[in-house]
Amino acid sequence: MSIGLLERGQLALQSQRFSSLLRARLTTLYPGKACLELPVDENHEQQHGFVHGGVISYLADNTLTFAAGSILGDCVTSEFKLNYVRPAVGSSLLIAEAEVIASGKSQAVCRCEVYFVKDGQRRLCAAAQGTIRRIE
Amino acid sequence: MSIGLLERGQLALQSQRFSSLLRARLTTLYPGKACLELPVDENHEQQHGFVHGGVISYLADNTLTFAAGSILGDCVTSEFKLNYVRPAVGSSLLIAEAEVIASGKSQAVCRCEVYFVKDGQRRLCAAAQGTIRRIE
Amino acid sequence: MSIGLLERGQLALQSQRFSSLLRARLTTLYPGKACLELPVDENHEQQHGFVHGGVISYLADNTLTFAAGSILGDCVTSEFKLNYVRPAVGSSLLIAEAEVIASGKSQAVCRCEVYFVKDGQRRLCAAAQGTIRRIE
Amino acid sequence: MSIGLLERGQLALQSQRFSSLLRARLTTLYPGKACLELPVDENHEQQHGFVHGGVISYLADNTLTFAAGSILGDCVTSEFKLNYVRPAVGSSLLIAEAEVIASGKSQAVCRCEVYFVKDGQRRLCAAAQGTIRRIE
Repeated sequence: MSIGLLERGQLALQSQRFSSLLRARLTTLYPGKACLELPVDENHEQQHGFVHGGVISYLADNTLTFAAGSILGDCVTSEFKLNYVRPAVGSSLLIAEAEVIASGKSQAVCRCEVYFVKDGQRRLCAAAQGTIRRIE
Repeated sequence: MSIGLLERGQLALQSQRFSSLLRARLTTLYPGKACLELPVDENHEQQHGFVHGGVISYLADNTLTFAAGSILGDCVTSEFKLNYVRPAVGSSLLIAEAEVIASGKSQAVCRCEVYFVKDGQRRLCAAAQGTIRRIE
Repeated sequence: MSIGLLERGQLALQSQRFSSLLRARLTTLYPGKACLELPVDENHEQQHGFVHGGVISYLADNTLTFAAGSILGDCVTSEFKLNYVRPAVGSSLLIAEAEVIASGKSQAVCRCEVYFVKDGQRRLCAAAQGTIRRIE
Repeated sequence: MSIGLLERGQLALQSQRFSSLLRARLTTLYPGKACLELPVDENHEQQHGFVHGGVISYLADNTLTFAAGSILGDCVTSEFKLNYVRPAVGSSLLIAEAEVIASGKSQAVCRCEVYFVKDGQRRLCAAAQGTIRRIE
């Protein structure tokens, strides 16, 4: 009996100790798409009470990699670019969605949106684009 | 008696709870330049035993912001781009250096290099470039 | 009698001498969206017979700016990032579509896709993301 | 009798028809470094009388590729990011300098600065960072 793509992705995420430390969860994984969630509290803040950019960039980077990994297998991020569009404040949950927009044999270009949930609504806090490379 | 730029920066860093969680240290800060260090261990790894990209992107993002903040005062990152050039492996210390390459009244463009220290030598693991914006 | 948004955009494009030199056309402009087209021939090639990256980056940059300008008015690009995903070859037309994904009073974050048309079909050749700033 | 690296680079540049159209010149090429110059006039402007961003992005992209090509051989740009830091105005010459900051067998990460010359002085107008890939 084989396990599915989502379960394999969740095992990969669990084997990332930094992701365990941050308590990231992989909630969706199918070919070309991934969704990660991250519960946030005051430990994730910077000095203005916003979620620290480093938390958001971690989440964007990782979600880009899982989206690509759904097609390419074992992967690492080669490069990415992130625009912060709004401070994530007053939220206890970040949600990141990524998708592959082009892929070849050895790498994929992906995009990701990061949202914070507040008062029951998602609001965009960051958008990313990057290149993910298959590990030989 | 006033405190210097480095001390003010260190207080700002301490007031970032996520930076305290990661135990980042600001070691250098003068107008246009900043250096941050981050001790790393197995809690910062991903599944291949490399330092997780999210740790490196946190450090690059934050060092960019401190470099700009040395000129602009209180700041946030608007956007940045990061290239991972080599896996950080077998290291217990990351060092990031950033400098302002152009600045105006409200924002600065900065570059950053992230190194890992191994066998007493620094090796480049990532390079970043981004825009930092003064908070009104 | 007033002229519409598309007409104003076309006049702005005409007043860009470099865009006239390259014969770019603005075909769509409504709040948050822009589409530019560029006829290409051998004068736009690099040494492998592909459309030169510089032509594609020009088109991405300009389309990002028109998308933002549809909301913000007179604008310039602050920064952008571009991934080339496939060589544009055997085509006589590039089409770029951009949209605003977040906007404030003074700037907008936009994304753009650049396609080449070949055998009656569009194929993605590049994807961009950037920040566009209103001119005071 | 063999020709040197600079001469080979100049031949490659000449074989880019778009670069000939723009009259770009390769003035320096040695392992890991490249310098391109571009004479500019009113045909390169946008509507505010600044050199069009597309001209600057062309020059940055191409200079990044020549810097990488000095090490890797025949190359294309995979992706790059560009910050415009100051409008290029009142100038008849752009100068771009690029260098390799990390390279492997198949790709290199490079940085580039683009200057405009005015009143006998260079002023930075843009800074770029990107990934250049060897063509098989």
